[in-house]
Amino acid sequence: MRRLKDDFHDLVTELQEKILRQIQVYDPNGEIIADDWERKDFKGNDGGGGITRAFRGDIIENAGVNTSLIHGEVDPKFATKLGSDDSCLWACGISLIIHPKNPKIPTVHANFRMIEIGDKVWFGGGADLTPYFPYEEDFIHFHKVWKNALAPYGVYEKFKDECDKYFVNHHRNGELRGIGGFFFDHFNTGDLRQDFNFIEDISAKFIESYFPIVERRFKESWTEEDEDFQLHRRGRYVEFNLLHDRGTAFGLQSNGRTESILISLPARCKYSYKYAPKKGTPHEKMMGYYKPIDWVNFTL
Amino acid sequence: MRRLKDDFHDLVTELQEKILRQIQVYDPNGEIIADDWERKDFKGNDGGGGITRAFRGDIIENAGVNTSLIHGEVDPKFATKLGSDDSCLWACGISLIIHPKNPKIPTVHANFRMIEIGDKVWFGGGADLTPYFPYEEDFIHFHKVWKNALAPYGVYEKFKDECDKYFVNHHRNGELRGIGGFFFDHFNTGDLRQDFNFIEDISAKFIESYFPIVERRFKESWTEEDEDFQLHRRGRYVEFNLLHDRGTAFGLQSNGRTESILISLPARCKYSYKYAPKKGTPHEKMMGYYKPIDWVNFTL
Repeated sequence: MRRLKDDFHDLVTELQEKILRQIQVYDPNGEIIADDWERKDFKGNDGGGGITRAFRGDIIENAGVNTSLIHGEVDPKFATKLGSDDSCLWACGISLIIHPKNPKIPTVHANFRMIEIGDKVWFGGGADLTPYFPYEEDFIHFHKVWKNALAPYGVYEKFKDECDKYFVNHHRNGELRGIGGFFFDHFNTGDLRQDFNFIEDISAKFIESYFPIVERRFKESWTEEDEDFQLHRRGRYVEFNLLHDRGTAFGLQSNGRTESILISLPARCKYSYKYAPKKGTPHEKMMGYYKPIDWVNFTL
Repeated sequence: MRRLKDDFHDLVTELQEKILRQIQVYDPNGEIIADDWERKDFKGNDGGGGITRAFRGDIIENAGVNTSLIHGEVDPKFATKLGSDDSCLWACGISLIIHPKNPKIPTVHANFRMIEIGDKVWFGGGADLTPYFPYEEDFIHFHKVWKNALAPYGVYEKFKDECDKYFVNHHRNGELRGIGGFFFDHFNTGDLRQDFNFIEDISAKFIESYFPIVERRFKESWTEEDEDFQLHRRGRYVEFNLLHDRGTAFGLQSNGRTESILISLPARCKYSYKYAPKKGTPHEKMMGYYKPIDWVNFTL
């Protein structure tokens, strides 16, 4: 188990480096704020820590690519919430969010994690896309990469469905945050090494799922109206993360580092009473896509 | 009781009109979106409704001045949360938020409400100020008006203290949303008519507490740095409202109208990793004021 945990930690820290290098391809002069932090556990002992990388650039307006490895005692009440009467926790993962400035490039979020509490161990993760312009071919590309990665394991439909059920703004009539992707939690087939290999395999596909879209769109121009729509949708992104996201709640409740958790929020956003895009615009069309859609079989 | 409820409803609708007229003094050409809405109760019967007034202007960037009167059955689980095994609810109130564009003018929030569930009746309310520039004389003015209003009833210290304990961003090391004011809930002295007179008396002071500050500041110029600080503090405002505010949770959980509830969010805001104002600026000074301070006795 020790070996597996070390391997998982290596996996996420290597992925962190790779993704940061990809971001820098587009923004070689962007600013990286590098924060390595430590934490105490519930009893005041060494509780691990994390490597936070906050990015600000011209193409990628803001991004966070964080890893953490936390361990030690948690508040017993919190352990109960996680379904355990043992409050000894070990958790390791990578979490990333990329908010490009250009509204033609989607926001992306992904994370991969391994959690052990008491005698329970499981994996979780996923990746989902939040576009602001109806470039359907980009959405098909994203979903096809993940279908190709997950279908050999027989979990594509299940994990896509879980994603469509998770990133929901329930207070907005069930509207989705974006156009989905895949999501899974409490994953454990009984063979941890095999499960590790699964995570290693799929997490390696993240770059292929997203960066070709950045490459295709980053030189495109945009209008004030495009940006206004993007900023309002970013507002919905904030609503989801603060009202509904279990990851945010988990982080804030487990005495996590607030700045590393709320790095997921966009640099700028807007709210307007009863905001709606104008009729006949690409943005109105985009509004019709924030619901479960079988993108892999979508006909252009 | 019927008479008292009618009187309370009249009180809040008249106050709504008065406050809207004050806003229009500064923004005669501002846009008012007037939405009158109805709702069904938990069993699908008539459940009352509300009068939503959303404002957008040049001086007042966005504001919401809403009243509602809702009644009927609520989800029994929700009634339990309110401490009642009877799920018949009657609730009436005014809730308002004003976000001026000029960072020299503070944001203000206030509400006054009367709630009856089963055989329990109580009043609640308050007003609090969220400034973005260290004009201490404005903060003293605001607090003095409320002290003068509340002290005759012997509740000033208690209600100010409750406000300082309520508008707290717990995930931000206990930083306050603004510089406080007063807050109370579950207020019932046993004489409902007397309690009504109390609410009538204090709610009438709202205009005096806030609009002289608008008058003093609305012609002042501001810098990009002033606005940048304001927009980041507005981001903290959103964090409080979505993560901690019981009013927002009450609204969303009681099947309230999302647009009327989230009207409290600012038109624009910003988030940056580890945002902090520059040393030696008025904004750094302002950061030192988001904590409980005895403003009435503050020495300039």
